[in-house]
Amino acid sequence: MSFLKKISPLLKNTFLSEKDVLSICAAQIEAEIQQGKRKNYNEVLDLSSGDLHRGGTKPISFVRQVLAACFYPELLEDDSLPLDVKQRAECLLRQCDGGSVGSYTDSCGIAKIKQCVTKFITRRDGGVPSSPDNIFITTGSQMALMFMVQLLVQSEGSGVLIPVPTYATFTQALEDQGAAIIPYHLCEEQGWTLQVEELRRALHAGRRTCNPVALYICNPGNPTGHMQSRKSIEEVIRFAAEERLFLLADEVYQSCVYGEDTEFESYKKVLSEMGSTISGTVELASFNSASKGFMGECGLRGGYMELVNLDPAVKEYTRTFFSTRSCPPVGGQIALDLMTDPPKPGDPSFPTFSEEIQSIKNMISKNARRIQEVFSEIQGISCQPLKAGFFVFPRLHLPPRAIKLAKKKQMEPDMLYCLHLLEESGLHVRSGCEYGQKKDSHHFRLFVATHEDTMEDVLQRLKTFHKRFMMEFS
Amino acid sequence: MSFLKKISPLLKNTFLSEKDVLSICAAQIEAEIQQGKRKNYNEVLDLSSGDLHRGGTKPISFVRQVLAACFYPELLEDDSLPLDVKQRAECLLRQCDGGSVGSYTDSCGIAKIKQCVTKFITRRDGGVPSSPDNIFITTGSQMALMFMVQLLVQSEGSGVLIPVPTYATFTQALEDQGAAIIPYHLCEEQGWTLQVEELRRALHAGRRTCNPVALYICNPGNPTGHMQSRKSIEEVIRFAAEERLFLLADEVYQSCVYGEDTEFESYKKVLSEMGSTISGTVELASFNSASKGFMGECGLRGGYMELVNLDPAVKEYTRTFFSTRSCPPVGGQIALDLMTDPPKPGDPSFPTFSEEIQSIKNMISKNARRIQEVFSEIQGISCQPLKAGFFVFPRLHLPPRAIKLAKKKQMEPDMLYCLHLLEESGLHVRSGCEYGQKKDSHHFRLFVATHEDTMEDVLQRLKTFHKRFMMEFS
Repeated sequence: MSFLKKISPLLKNTFLSEKDVLSICAAQIEAEIQQGKRKNYNEVLDLSSGDLHRGGTKPISFVRQVLAACFYPELLEDDSLPLDVKQRAECLLRQCDGGSVGSYTDSCGIAKIKQCVTKFITRRDGGVPSSPDNIFITTGSQMALMFMVQLLVQSEGSGVLIPVPTYATFTQALEDQGAAIIPYHLCEEQGWTLQVEELRRALHAGRRTCNPVALYICNPGNPTGHMQSRKSIEEVIRFAAEERLFLLADEVYQSCVYGEDTEFESYKKVLSEMGSTISGTVELASFNSASKGFMGECGLRGGYMELVNLDPAVKEYTRTFFSTRSCPPVGGQIALDLMTDPPKPGDPSFPTFSEEIQSIKNMISKNARRIQEVFSEIQGISCQPLKAGFFVFPRLHLPPRAIKLAKKKQMEPDMLYCLHLLEESGLHVRSGCEYGQKKDSHHFRLFVATHEDTMEDVLQRLKTFHKRFMMEFS
Repeated sequence: MSFLKKISPLLKNTFLSEKDVLSICAAQIEAEIQQGKRKNYNEVLDLSSGDLHRGGTKPISFVRQVLAACFYPELLEDDSLPLDVKQRAECLLRQCDGGSVGSYTDSCGIAKIKQCVTKFITRRDGGVPSSPDNIFITTGSQMALMFMVQLLVQSEGSGVLIPVPTYATFTQALEDQGAAIIPYHLCEEQGWTLQVEELRRALHAGRRTCNPVALYICNPGNPTGHMQSRKSIEEVIRFAAEERLFLLADEVYQSCVYGEDTEFESYKKVLSEMGSTISGTVELASFNSASKGFMGECGLRGGYMELVNLDPAVKEYTRTFFSTRSCPPVGGQIALDLMTDPPKPGDPSFPTFSEEIQSIKNMISKNARRIQEVFSEIQGISCQPLKAGFFVFPRLHLPPRAIKLAKKKQMEPDMLYCLHLLEESGLHVRSGCEYGQKKDSHHFRLFVATHEDTMEDVLQRLKTFHKRFMMEFS
């Protein structure tokens, strides 16, 4: 029975991605080390994913204590847990049917947690109101994003503007939803800023082949580490208003901001302050997650989306759509509750909580500074100012002979670089070609949120490797 | 900006479902009771969902202890937790990057847990081999099912055969994936059996309007409580082979079997024993979940799918597809590990574990017997033998005057019945019209897995109400 034929249009994408190739190589090297094979290093350092705990950061105690008490309420009798942990767990369990996190919740999330989220948003946005009706809690923010895209691209040939660079699996997932991809380039030379002229160029180019319906923005950016200024956000919103584009604002890195004089402003906040013609009309979905903040709880799968200015009938449809799906995991929902309503001064858990958060913030800021210091000294690497998020995306200025060799091996030059880096120095990073980049420009992506000592080791290995690599091919 | 126009084809389905109407009414009544309004009852009894914990069943201690220790590894030092709980938690944490359940896992699930699942399947199927390569762990089994449907209905006008009755949100979700629905009727008179002649009729009818590609079976059945015999499964498989249909076997109620002389046999097992022409060709995806077994962990969202006989390229595509999505929640994955590899005789947790499971089994069996006893005595209700699953779907033989009134009120007769039942007796059940049923037949769906005393209360309320309702309208 040839089921294969039926799905052949999709199969064109069945191949190992660059990410897979590097992961497979990393696993092979690790296996070799375990088998006693000698290398220049004792272990592979994995800077390939955006995962705080994988990078060695310990989970936030308050978060894990509340989760443990929710899953095993016998712990509510345990004297070793702080009072506010127990109170929070009791409060959350009261929201669960049968007092159990094992029960289904409403498909859009537990009402009390949605309320928590709205209060968090209102606080964040300096008082701009937020309503639980507009909040949809989902199995990670990506699920909500994919749903919105599915909704927006109902008619054939609908296009979504997405930045270059952006992560390849995301582009693939959009295509799986039936979206035509319209790439717009971020301006590396100006710190990976988003320029409206480029959006306009991309839109007009896109209109020749599809019907652009939405504009996706990732702010703060992955993989660029850039954060938009207020002025830039205003320009984008005005552009969306003029061109009648739906705005998809991926703001999952909003709490991870460390650039000097840099403060996160949400699309929703900026939109609300742009005068009623615009603020009351531009349709916006913004996304946030428990995975990418300082709590880094990727494995719990908790995200949410807030809808702004949507037609009530569309919002109702969205609700109906979600009601045909099972609820998001309760553990992820709890993580969102704790993220949006953390311990306050005076609460028993507050001192430990704020100490843990501060230590993660310090680690990331320190790493960001060190990365820029070191990269500024390395010939053949240039790096834009790092302002926010979990990644840096430095540019590689590779010698022609390296590029020639890569061509011969039928791979992208930065992939060649990353493979050599992995093999020779045990550093597992991601190759720029996975993200899309301007022709003849080469990059790699490095996770910045790992322990300071590990980062120092990473930078030293990278420096040594890079020098040798450049020598070999110059 | 009229985003609405763009999605108008979908909006036809934006209305309150029967489920919503009953839920809203139930909430209103509960609010009235809280405000002191007098009713014939003190509380609404909710038998509307298939949720063990919501129905009052306590979570399995072993499951929750392991989860708590995984979320908060400080508990590994706690003397009050059994040794096997700690060992299991330690083992699971070793499978997690950074030793944290907060890290992403492989998109198809943790390798060790997939192995556990295959061992469970092989044991269940009397030795039929199962490979981790064919196992996809997902955010609940529905997510896997929706993915398979999306894959199968790539070309416009692809149809999926689904049973009547079946739950409405499922039908809706299939339509959202672009599937044309081809209903086949289960034979109520013969105990809700699945008859191949009816499948054939439905298929031929379906071929007039679409291209049938897959056959969905729910065994044991929701809402019918029926379980297929081996002979019936063989017939269905032969039919699928002849008609070149992909089999989607929803087997989430497989562990909940209580009919006399009734034992669950999986589609995969039966298929494997049908001779190589059939056993090597019929494509099958089967689904299971941590929500519907005796552990009832719906809120954790852990399910899996096993693929049989799929073209390697399609399987590879499936893997690629999943790799563009984030992983299933780690809590749900852990639940699957514990479900498929429970404590064994001799393990410290075994006595409590088996006692808890046995008590749930006893409760459900006892309720099933009582329901059938009581229903057999009530005039105007007929009920097929209950064999498995969480639900009973009795038929209502309503007086013409009740049917007339329902018509006048523009609702289905069983909806009228359920609304009256809710208002007068405080019983919240689901109306048969939600599930689809043969013309002029009426039903309701009742959750069987609630505490024995509650069930006795339910049955007494129902008996009294039904008598009064029949009198009023006769």
